[in-house]
Amino acid sequence: MTAENLPVLAILGGTGDLGTGLARRWAQAGYRVIIGSRTADKAEAAVADLREVMAERGVAEVAVEAMENLAAAEAADIVTLTVPFAHQTATLELVKPALQGKILVDVTVPLVPPRVARVQLPAEGSAGQIAQDLLGEEVAVVSAFQNVAAHHLQEGHGLNCDVLVCGNKKDARAEVIKLVEAAGMRGFHAGMINNAAAAEALTSVLITINKQYQCHAGIRITGLDGDE
Amino acid sequence: MTAENLPVLAILGGTGDLGTGLARRWAQAGYRVIIGSRTADKAEAAVADLREVMAERGVAEVAVEAMENLAAAEAADIVTLTVPFAHQTATLELVKPALQGKILVDVTVPLVPPRVARVQLPAEGSAGQIAQDLLGEEVAVVSAFQNVAAHHLQEGHGLNCDVLVCGNKKDARAEVIKLVEAAGMRGFHAGMINNAAAAEALTSVLITINKQYQCHAGIRITGLDGDE
Repeated sequence: MTAENLPVLAILGGTGDLGTGLARRWAQAGYRVIIGSRTADKAEAAVADLREVMAERGVAEVAVEAMENLAAAEAADIVTLTVPFAHQTATLELVKPALQGKILVDVTVPLVPPRVARVQLPAEGSAGQIAQDLLGEEVAVVSAFQNVAAHHLQEGHGLNCDVLVCGNKKDARAEVIKLVEAAGMRGFHAGMINNAAAAEALTSVLITINKQYQCHAGIRITGLDGDE
Repeated sequence: MTAENLPVLAILGGTGDLGTGLARRWAQAGYRVIIGSRTADKAEAAVADLREVMAERGVAEVAVEAMENLAAAEAADIVTLTVPFAHQTATLELVKPALQGKILVDVTVPLVPPRVARVQLPAEGSAGQIAQDLLGEEVAVVSAFQNVAAHHLQEGHGLNCDVLVCGNKKDARAEVIKLVEAAGMRGFHAGMINNAAAAEALTSVLITINKQYQCHAGIRITGLDGDE
């Protein structure tokens, strides 16, 4: 835990658009963030980029550092996974010992290239379920952020999209909803881990909409009290 | 076609909240609407209810009539199916001969009672895919309306939710998007029929959110041009 009592965050595969977008927003919210990658070099480069963007935005001090994935997972309280579906299993097997008793935020979307606009869910039901099965009950897998356009995450301003948060443990979901809010969005309790299937499938639909309507689409939950 | 050149609409299983909600909105928009049910009596009762609600709203004349499901499908240009998942296959087998060359709007959500808040998609991928496989290529299956709260559909005013429209034929999707708009919502081209999995899975997530936050949730697509 940091001095402010915030959990230390690691982002594995944190050098992509989604990972660096989350890292910037969490660092700016005061969290200590570790960017993990398969090599320390790639992680260092992402951290250097991030410091540059923060400096441009007039943010002098951010607690961001670079590590290899396993070291990042060991050093963090909450670990976020933002790797392509094809690397999900291998990355989780590598860091499994470091995740015991922690929350894993799974952002994996089971896209099957080249037809990424087609919903093609895995036989297990969802990538979230795959992660939970692989890691066992001592790791609280919480899926989130599958429907956030990295394009918007990279921007400095507020985000007009919501995040569906799925996981078998309510306390763990609540922790992740705090992280969603720290990144400038609303998070919703969306059910058990296999309900991640909905958010994962929706990503392909949003890719379809992006192509069709030339946009970077997201979703917002409507029909809440005072909403209409 | 009616005098105004609008297609004649049938709603099979049209006596439930979702079916009657759509019937009211389409009738009010000037469409001729046939409410279909397993018995003519049930359909007649739904039509009588609908006329009463319309009269209360000061709408004197609506072109709504009652038929058994097969007769309704025969008499219509576009057929909408709003039956529980358990009745989807039997109803489609009954009306299949009447659907050749037409659009079937499939609203089926593959909920598995009693755990309707859990995503449990069928082995075929989606209820929409089941319908397309069963009906064959001469029927354009278009899935839609799975995420619309019947509660809001029954109300007289505008709806703050969007509709994901999936189907293998773009022209057919465009026809259904007109019906979505006639019912007071925005419709989006959301890909091929199996992408219906996303909307179908999302219904269980919205049921979860309804329970958790005491609301009647829907979704809205964000990130469009001029949207933020």
